[in-house]
Amino acid sequence: MEKVDLSDAFDSFDEPWSPRLAGELNGQAVKLAKADGEFVWHQHDDADELFLVVSGQLRIELREESDVVLRESEFVIVPRGVEHRPVADEGADILLFEPSGTQNTGNVDDELTAEVERIE
Amino acid sequence: MEKVDLSDAFDSFDEPWSPRLAGELNGQAVKLAKADGEFVWHQHDDADELFLVVSGQLRIELREESDVVLRESEFVIVPRGVEHRPVADEGADILLFEPSGTQNTGNVDDELTAEVERIE
Repeated sequence: MEKVDLSDAFDSFDEPWSPRLAGELNGQAVKLAKADGEFVWHQHDDADELFLVVSGQLRIELREESDVVLRESEFVIVPRGVEHRPVADEGADILLFEPSGTQNTGNVDDELTAEVERIE
Repeated sequence: MEKVDLSDAFDSFDEPWSPRLAGELNGQAVKLAKADGEFVWHQHDDADELFLVVSGQLRIELREESDVVLRESEFVIVPRGVEHRPVADEGADILLFEPSGTQNTGNVDDELTAEVERIE
């Protein structure tokens, strides 16, 4: 049973918008990602997605509602089927909870679509 | 879509070992708890359980392995069926991720068995 130190884990990679797998439980994945600039508009038809900001600031843009701005130690759950676009103007380290196998760009295939690598 | 500020959420209650529901997604619950002193030995037969320390220090005692000591921003996943006892000698604020409906004392009914209230 190995613990994960979030600081060490975020120090272990640099690539933005390329989620790393930090753990799995009950068919769900804990992923870590570095947000930097604008991601792509997308949605997950079968997956609710939790965004927790570990450091920095993340803005989640929504089509039908006002943006949600998350600062350190704030989280929001984006329900399945809700189109959204994460943006981090100054960069952010974020933790995601979502079903294992969820594609980062959801219903969209994009140059930012990324395979998930496990944290070393 | 309402964000949750973990600092505000932990400030909203005092009772130790009485988890509050901070969000639900994909049949899973995000719970917040104040750990203080020794919890009870227990296991969850059908649920893996993630412990993330938000502040303070939590020791997870295990029957078959060395204790896992978690400091701020560290997490561990206790697999289903593994007996464990959380202990926080100096207190800790912890975030739990586990299936909705998981009982805090698992297979044990104890005076610390608690209903989960939603964060206000």
